[in-house]
Amino acid sequence: MRAWGKPRVAGTREDMRVGVVALAGGVGAGKFLRGLVGVVPPEDVTVVVNTGDDLVVHGLHVSPDLDSVLYWLAGAMDRERGWGRADESFRTTAELRRLGADGAWFGLGDLDLATHLLRARLLRDGHSLSAATAELARRFGVATRLLPMTDDPVATRLSVIDESGRERDLHFQEYWVAREARDRVLAIRYVGADAARPAPGILQAVEEADRIVICPSNPIASIDPILAVPGIRGAVEAARDRVVAISPIIGGAPVRGMADKLLPAVGEAVSATGVARHYRKLLGAYVIDRVDAAARPEIEGLLDGGTVAVVDTLMVDDAVATSLAAAALACVGAGA
Amino acid sequence: MRAWGKPRVAGTREDMRVGVVALAGGVGAGKFLRGLVGVVPPEDVTVVVNTGDDLVVHGLHVSPDLDSVLYWLAGAMDRERGWGRADESFRTTAELRRLGADGAWFGLGDLDLATHLLRARLLRDGHSLSAATAELARRFGVATRLLPMTDDPVATRLSVIDESGRERDLHFQEYWVAREARDRVLAIRYVGADAARPAPGILQAVEEADRIVICPSNPIASIDPILAVPGIRGAVEAARDRVVAISPIIGGAPVRGMADKLLPAVGEAVSATGVARHYRKLLGAYVIDRVDAAARPEIEGLLDGGTVAVVDTLMVDDAVATSLAAAALACVGAGA
Repeated sequence: MRAWGKPRVAGTREDMRVGVVALAGGVGAGKFLRGLVGVVPPEDVTVVVNTGDDLVVHGLHVSPDLDSVLYWLAGAMDRERGWGRADESFRTTAELRRLGADGAWFGLGDLDLATHLLRARLLRDGHSLSAATAELARRFGVATRLLPMTDDPVATRLSVIDESGRERDLHFQEYWVAREARDRVLAIRYVGADAARPAPGILQAVEEADRIVICPSNPIASIDPILAVPGIRGAVEAARDRVVAISPIIGGAPVRGMADKLLPAVGEAVSATGVARHYRKLLGAYVIDRVDAAARPEIEGLLDGGTVAVVDTLMVDDAVATSLAAAALACVGAGA
Repeated sequence: MRAWGKPRVAGTREDMRVGVVALAGGVGAGKFLRGLVGVVPPEDVTVVVNTGDDLVVHGLHVSPDLDSVLYWLAGAMDRERGWGRADESFRTTAELRRLGADGAWFGLGDLDLATHLLRARLLRDGHSLSAATAELARRFGVATRLLPMTDDPVATRLSVIDESGRERDLHFQEYWVAREARDRVLAIRYVGADAARPAPGILQAVEEADRIVICPSNPIASIDPILAVPGIRGAVEAARDRVVAISPIIGGAPVRGMADKLLPAVGEAVSATGVARHYRKLLGAYVIDRVDAAARPEIEGLLDGGTVAVVDTLMVDDAVATSLAAAALACVGAGA
């Protein structure tokens, strides 16, 4: 494994050091980040996480992507299911459903509920979402810095046509969890993004980072909301030479999720090439799967001289994620 | 079983009919009320429940006595443990404890948590505690009218001497749950009671009731807070001929709870007689256990002509509770 970034020097402000910034959605990002912190000291990683999917369930602020990343980095995730906690149960949610509670369509696990109750308490006590997230990370023993993309409310909403032909406006979670992505998506909006400010530390971290990684997350549902917060896209574009993305599409399909429904809604192909085209102004390098190797020349053309690496990207275990992270970091930044 | 109260007449406003009003604490009241609704149609019973023990846990309003009564009447209670739900688990609470959350000393079960999340939602939506309680009862299929003693905040607090000799001021739940009643109690206060108003319907129900039952609950921790809400004690005293209490003390000890620690703090003996003396201005009748039969003459003297019934009061099952309720109702009111 190659060396990366600046050497750590005793006596310097190591706590201020930004090695890698990762832009992250939920499960795909979580899997990748477990690999990343295998090649970079966890405390040198700053993860900027999508909050466009956040919602209030039973009065509790739920941040699905922050929670996925937290659980994966803490080793508390359910690896098979992808989201939520290992050894999870859903007794409170089942009882809320029996009692006819609104919002019980969004299933909160009993262990997961502890996170939401603790976050709700921190927010009610006046902490920002950033501060609450840092406190949760501390309590889960996660040394990596987790930042929500913003402390301001942003909601990813979809205009869809439902099965009866009616146009509807849905919160992302209604579309994805309640209606299982069965509606045809016409358009995506990040409501509130225009007025949102990047969470404290994001712009500085992007500016100072040795490398910036766009995790293999849904470009439309997870990464674009982050980039829609004023200032973040510009900062990433300005750092383009240090930016590498991993394609979340392998062989024309997402590993999980609904990117195949959302990419067409913004006019992009459901392919490694389509995602590269979508990100092209941001990237110094791009990582695709071996099954998509034939697309390499076309993608190199799109990236205007950027590196395209071809490796195994299906993260069936931490070892693959670690190799993938090492390969991604090798494409950009100091010594690349 | 004898007939009781007015006959039900088709076409009258039966929903407004008040057969029996019960003043209730938690577990002892819950057991008794299961018996009561075996001899009185459930919808003809109004239960006025102590809320002095209420507390906020993880941001959720928890009403331990309302919940106990609700669960017992819904048949959802844990009969062995007394409080909480049958088939309960405590996974969220265990996780909150692992995460070092404040307030996790108060253990909320996973099923129980559904009640608190639903109540919190109703309160946040602007419902009063009365309205939220009615809605919870409806969702649990409980036809009996449950009323909190007040919609205003009242907190039962204790001045105690702890094991190191230090005087402390504790919320009732800190004394009872967190510190397991190990401190010596000097005094009890119902903070906020002076400014509290009876929940809507209580005074009218007491006035119109055929019979008023003071459940076998802790006189100091459960019944006195209800009576401390301005207007309620006066209404009960005015209805004295229709009031019957069941002694919560059998053979000099409470069946459960800490009445043995609290009665001395108000200068009363821990005995059926002590409780009778405490309630003496309120009672038309009083029910004691067979083991306390010898106290009957003294208690009759205290009650100034009131009836004293001697029956089995240890509610080991619903059948005993039903017999006890029938015996209590037989002591007072129409035809007594």
